[in-house]
Amino acid sequence: MPYVCYVFYDVPDDGLRNRIADTLKNYGLERLQKSVFWGEMTWNRATELAMVLDDLIGKQEADVRIIFVPPSFRDKVIVVRDMYSVRMERPKVMVL
Amino acid sequence: MPYVCYVFYDVPDDGLRNRIADTLKNYGLERLQKSVFWGEMTWNRATELAMVLDDLIGKQEADVRIIFVPPSFRDKVIVVRDMYSVRMERPKVMVL
Repeated sequence: MPYVCYVFYDVPDDGLRNRIADTLKNYGLERLQKSVFWGEMTWNRATELAMVLDDLIGKQEADVRIIFVPPSFRDKVIVVRDMYSVRMERPKVMVL
Repeated sequence: MPYVCYVFYDVPDDGLRNRIADTLKNYGLERLQKSVFWGEMTWNRATELAMVLDDLIGKQEADVRIIFVPPSFRDKVIVVRDMYSVRMERPKVMVL
């Protein structure tokens, strides 16, 4: 079953940060914020991505997390402010 | 029902960014990364927080989102790298 996944990262090094962003794009994820991507992935695909990211980071400083949201929760989002255009149609967001 | 909530933000202005972080702390959320907080909130509490943040942001540039994870998914997290110490005991994380 594919989940909605969010990947967010805090990486001091510019080069590594860019390589992480490129990897996430290559996995079909979309940028939501500078350091947040999202998209659909199965658990297996996400664990594979995690290993690729781990290799990429090596001994550098980084905090990288992948969280999973069930399909029934994909609309459960509050977008307080949307600064960027999001191309994916779903989740529908509740704009306050 | 309290959910596990993640709040992540992208805010160019330093002062506003700090005020947002302070507000999230005041709502009992914990910092996970520089621009990511998490904790338990009900939907009502989260919508209240969203309104407070919206007021705070006013006409400034910001992208701020609150996402909700059901209790059954709180362990479904892959921590690729953990750069900071996280005080909350749960979710148990799978460190690859």
